[in-house]
Amino acid sequence: MTENESAIVRKFRKELNSGTVSLVLLATLDQATAPLYGYQIAKQLEEKAEGGVPVKQGTLYPILRSMNDNGLLGSSVEPSVSGPPRKYYTITEQGREVLATWKSEWMSTRDFVDAVLKGDIG
Amino acid sequence: MTENESAIVRKFRKELNSGTVSLVLLATLDQATAPLYGYQIAKQLEEKAEGGVPVKQGTLYPILRSMNDNGLLGSSVEPSVSGPPRKYYTITEQGREVLATWKSEWMSTRDFVDAVLKGDIG
Repeated sequence: MTENESAIVRKFRKELNSGTVSLVLLATLDQATAPLYGYQIAKQLEEKAEGGVPVKQGTLYPILRSMNDNGLLGSSVEPSVSGPPRKYYTITEQGREVLATWKSEWMSTRDFVDAVLKGDIG
Repeated sequence: MTENESAIVRKFRKELNSGTVSLVLLATLDQATAPLYGYQIAKQLEEKAEGGVPVKQGTLYPILRSMNDNGLLGSSVEPSVSGPPRKYYTITEQGREVLATWKSEWMSTRDFVDAVLKGDIG
């Protein structure tokens, strides 16, 4: 693969992730039975991903903060015995409403893309 | 849904589309048996989409041009009897290589997102 091609593939991956990362973060917090801090969320995502999470851990934090700022997540800071204080996140009622819509957007986009790609073999 | 929520949902849709539109355009041209111009591509996508294409037609053109500029697509301009000249696109060899990688990125991202969402019912 040429340098130009690699750059194009990286750009694609970045664009694809920009939408999906918020979705998986919100869904993870929706399923959580207790507040979670960033590292715990990253670990849970890793467990779900066979062959590696398509997302770097460092990109999760600004998205969590942004979802906290716009009311999809609530947060509380707790001291930690092993390091700096941790910010624990929970999903809000508004977050659940947005998640329901995001999920339905995701499913229709996914089905659309898959329908187009299927043409390759059909 | 509040105004804030609608804005958040619109942003999500835009981010989700920014990656997938290039993918479906390239796949459509890969499957085409003849060069296609923008409107034909839009029509083909419409046929594949149940319940509406999640992409506005106007957003397709700049992406086609950009994929033409970076070598994924070739193009030729042909006069039209019914209006201005049309730009016909074909996929290039480089386009096919990039498409193969994009497809595999798409599938692993899709499976990852679905695995996380499945937690909601599992």
